[in-house]
Amino acid sequence: MNAELTPQQARERFRAGLRAPTAGYCAGWTQANLIALPRSHAYDFLLFAQRNPKSCPVLDVTEPGATAAELFSGDLRTDLPAYRVYRDGELVEERDEVAELWRDDLVAFLIGCSFTFEAALLDAGVPVRHLDQGRNVPMYRTDRECRPAGELSGPLVVSMRPVPAAQISDAVRITSRYPAVHGAPVHVGSPAELGIADLDSPDFGEPVEIRDGEIPVFWACGVTPQAAVMRSRPPLAIGHAPGHMAITDARDADYLVP
Amino acid sequence: MNAELTPQQARERFRAGLRAPTAGYCAGWTQANLIALPRSHAYDFLLFAQRNPKSCPVLDVTEPGATAAELFSGDLRTDLPAYRVYRDGELVEERDEVAELWRDDLVAFLIGCSFTFEAALLDAGVPVRHLDQGRNVPMYRTDRECRPAGELSGPLVVSMRPVPAAQISDAVRITSRYPAVHGAPVHVGSPAELGIADLDSPDFGEPVEIRDGEIPVFWACGVTPQAAVMRSRPPLAIGHAPGHMAITDARDADYLVP
Repeated sequence: MNAELTPQQARERFRAGLRAPTAGYCAGWTQANLIALPRSHAYDFLLFAQRNPKSCPVLDVTEPGATAAELFSGDLRTDLPAYRVYRDGELVEERDEVAELWRDDLVAFLIGCSFTFEAALLDAGVPVRHLDQGRNVPMYRTDRECRPAGELSGPLVVSMRPVPAAQISDAVRITSRYPAVHGAPVHVGSPAELGIADLDSPDFGEPVEIRDGEIPVFWACGVTPQAAVMRSRPPLAIGHAPGHMAITDARDADYLVP
Repeated sequence: MNAELTPQQARERFRAGLRAPTAGYCAGWTQANLIALPRSHAYDFLLFAQRNPKSCPVLDVTEPGATAAELFSGDLRTDLPAYRVYRDGELVEERDEVAELWRDDLVAFLIGCSFTFEAALLDAGVPVRHLDQGRNVPMYRTDRECRPAGELSGPLVVSMRPVPAAQISDAVRITSRYPAVHGAPVHVGSPAELGIADLDSPDFGEPVEIRDGEIPVFWACGVTPQAAVMRSRPPLAIGHAPGHMAITDARDADYLVP
């Protein structure tokens, strides 16, 4: 069972060539978004994260050129199942490993991922529709601007999960206890107030069914910083392929606040 | 009454030349530590803060050369009651204002201050001895190293408040709800385990009385990042004079987590 693998075991499989989405792997261990940037672009990114912590919760940052992180004892260049490579802000290729592309000046950021709070929602009996439907979560550009930082600016991007009205309070309470993975919702109920015209036409991911009695709930999304970075057109950026996350040595429980 | 001043009113008095410690000013408004550094040293500082959030809770960061911050609508060069100026890591002078010294490449950091959680402790009936005794809080270097970042490294420095045994639980619970101002204690009870030889001989501040039935409780302290910065000997650094804080436009309640 993938859920029972340790992070080390899962990373060994990915290093050996397995290419698979990491949802369901290593239950209880924290999965993270990866974005690696030249040191020259790292300050703006870290400052953008400081100013927009709900959309960009930084879990760890490496020294320039390092291939492991405090929270990731594997090899960041080979131990994710798939990578995306961007040059001047454009996606140029998707690869199984990026060993030859890693540069001495690359700084890797590990960013919290909503997998952590989705596990907590499921444990509390709150449905997570895109998981039920086997889809990617729907994500939307909003009309709210992030606080800019240096070269980085852009709109807040949110993910949406429909929640039965009776469980909204639980969903808010539970996710607010995970500030390191986007935390409490940024909005409950009214897409129009966020400038979202049509929930059936997400900007990223796939639409999901909203049933009678369910209310759309919006959380800050990790696509926000990624989109802002790409707009600044760094010469090189390396990220995980969507859904193919870095499985860290941290426990989801480490990010639970009282 | 100083407690009833708005931040704007207090800042006007300091700008006009009043030099006074800010304890007791502007009840309910958040006070912050100031440290301004050249842009060349800002990344290491921001990364040190990301890696050591309990001792270095960043509330706001300015653009290079800016004289106001999102959380501080006054003038950072004149609206604190007193400043300290450091060159190559050495204190060179204490001044009422630093207008002529401000450079186009200075980045100002506002860092959370324990005044916020001390007000919450007092509200809950937990005594704060150094306030009762009219002293500065006692602070100690520990034998725990911070996670270094670039040029910045050094030991964790803690502040100590004696708490009656029956109220330890309250003190932990209350301060844990303020992660942006050092949060929960890093240690309760045993100075020796932190490498502290003698509570009566603090490394900074003044000793306080520990009464029968009280237990020393240790919180991460804002002196930690300041000491690490000075060891890296930046050409210029400007900070607040101890106890003469930046009074921000944020409310203490803004930093309360559920």
